[in-house]
Amino acid sequence: MGPRNDITLDELALATRNHGLPLEALRYDVTPPGLHYILVHYDIPAARAEDWQLSVTGQVRTELSLSLDDLRSLPSVTHHVVMECAGNGRALLVPRPISQPWLVEAVGCAQWTGVPLRTVLEQAGVRPGAVEAVFTGADHGIERGVEQDYQRSLPLPLPADVLLAYAMNGRPLPPQHGFPLRLIVPGWYGMAHVKWLRGITLVDTPFTGYQQAVAYRYRDRPDDPDDPGRPVTRIAPRALLVPPGFPDFMTRARTLRPGPTTLHGRAWSGHGPIARVEVSTDHGHTWHDAHVTPRPADSHAWQAWHTSWNPTPGLYSITARATDTHGNTQPLDPPWNHGGFTNNSLHHTTVHCTPHT
Amino acid sequence: MGPRNDITLDELALATRNHGLPLEALRYDVTPPGLHYILVHYDIPAARAEDWQLSVTGQVRTELSLSLDDLRSLPSVTHHVVMECAGNGRALLVPRPISQPWLVEAVGCAQWTGVPLRTVLEQAGVRPGAVEAVFTGADHGIERGVEQDYQRSLPLPLPADVLLAYAMNGRPLPPQHGFPLRLIVPGWYGMAHVKWLRGITLVDTPFTGYQQAVAYRYRDRPDDPDDPGRPVTRIAPRALLVPPGFPDFMTRARTLRPGPTTLHGRAWSGHGPIARVEVSTDHGHTWHDAHVTPRPADSHAWQAWHTSWNPTPGLYSITARATDTHGNTQPLDPPWNHGGFTNNSLHHTTVHCTPHT
Repeated sequence: MGPRNDITLDELALATRNHGLPLEALRYDVTPPGLHYILVHYDIPAARAEDWQLSVTGQVRTELSLSLDDLRSLPSVTHHVVMECAGNGRALLVPRPISQPWLVEAVGCAQWTGVPLRTVLEQAGVRPGAVEAVFTGADHGIERGVEQDYQRSLPLPLPADVLLAYAMNGRPLPPQHGFPLRLIVPGWYGMAHVKWLRGITLVDTPFTGYQQAVAYRYRDRPDDPDDPGRPVTRIAPRALLVPPGFPDFMTRARTLRPGPTTLHGRAWSGHGPIARVEVSTDHGHTWHDAHVTPRPADSHAWQAWHTSWNPTPGLYSITARATDTHGNTQPLDPPWNHGGFTNNSLHHTTVHCTPHT
Repeated sequence: MGPRNDITLDELALATRNHGLPLEALRYDVTPPGLHYILVHYDIPAARAEDWQLSVTGQVRTELSLSLDDLRSLPSVTHHVVMECAGNGRALLVPRPISQPWLVEAVGCAQWTGVPLRTVLEQAGVRPGAVEAVFTGADHGIERGVEQDYQRSLPLPLPADVLLAYAMNGRPLPPQHGFPLRLIVPGWYGMAHVKWLRGITLVDTPFTGYQQAVAYRYRDRPDDPDDPGRPVTRIAPRALLVPPGFPDFMTRARTLRPGPTTLHGRAWSGHGPIARVEVSTDHGHTWHDAHVTPRPADSHAWQAWHTSWNPTPGLYSITARATDTHGNTQPLDPPWNHGGFTNNSLHHTTVHCTPHT
């Protein structure tokens, strides 16, 4: 744990490797590679598409070893998916869990093309005893003393929209996004979207690997580090604002000219479509509803929202709050837990409206 | 200024927006977008290729306004160019200048395609009185109280290899790399490669804008902040290593199995080709020469280097030192200055060689 204003060099080393979405890039419906957030646990593996093999083993009738050409020969689908790191907001928690120090920008929304996982599992034939699918990436490293390949599992039956993706935004995956193959699990936080996917194993008992049973758990009792916690799964709702005006380089403080303008941004939830985005320009004292673009039933994309604003000179604190169709919304105060997961508390953008600088 | 182990939230906000090259990506001859370092001073502008115009004004016989189609209709060239942020290494200086807190990773080497700037200046006809060309980007913001469009100048006559680039690695520029048009100045630090280029003005007196006369100057007298300093121009030599073995997630500490392996990486200088890369596995006590791939005369790319290594179990500190054909090399200790520029001191990678974890 660290105090809020003392980021360590270890955290900085992660922050200079990985990166978030510059908030002005919320303007793009589809996030270009290099602007979409990325978190790589270990090293980006050196991978060649020509000799990549995906193995399907365990509780299946027929074990499979599939090349990329094998996968590309199957019917493909494209999903537009918002993806967010479970640790987004971590660096604003007090005390601060020490890990990748995200503020609020660990998100992106890309188009992923690949083969429905169900298609491949039907080829292999899942045995009745199977309860979970375990996904293994080619990235290898150590976490809290545990040497491991990155592994995560999903319970069976799997949602129909889970993808084996070989393309992002219509191009082969960038290396940092899992080239040549990654799992896409719409609605779930990023840890489930296993990159550099090389193995799928059907198991008859729940997977207890590090990333499943130790990391990515909600443990909210500060006095009980042995709390087994609850699993991190779907994305909690969040709304973010395209920062108005222009920034100061160092502080990112915003300056805006007086007069009519539009406040706009994106909102999303892994539990369902966003039903409502409320906006405040006075730090949450008063709110009004923004116009939210509806989400098609089959979409997993973020949703655009906008509202008009006509500021006079002064200092404003702008906040947006998202609520999804299940009634999930954003808390005022950060929900603390040992891992620093799912801090979707309200984000405030300070704007100085002035005719001159 | 800040002490070494107290990164501020302002610095972190820059580190989560911008990003460096994950060092394992030194393996790629051509750095993919999203892995190439990026530093954006203000916001990434919203730009449309269809209505982009580049103006050429000032001390010219004929002022020009060129569309992207106009530029694409001219003969194009492609340069393979190593690019590095002048602030690379800043966060390791003590006391630490407060700005984008780079450690060692602010580098990349991409292929840039566009029109030689000379071609366009010949169309415009440079008047005899012109002494510099001033380049203006579409990015707008505030730095130390100065509201500005990002602007930099280059002295005349301009090197033949300066490019107006509209493609990176054979594709349109990514937004964060200057879409739709950026200046490429091979051999110079990144601040010269003006992104979102919308204007070129030929001037008859030296440009004194903020990024030229205030920022990006070497001011090395701690007791004299009014020192006008010397301009930051070409890239000082540096060698970096692809980290051997595999990392710990949080500390990035490296674990390597015993036995024959190859140490490899890249080296570069903006002053000329790299003539020599020396490698030490004992924190610089002893050195031996690595094999360096020669650089073609017309190339501005980084150069690959490698050497074989056969470690037994133990702790090693691996260092590489580059020297260019002009005899410029890397210092042992960081060269301090107020802006934290050009810290190309030796980088040490600690590797724990062990048969087990």
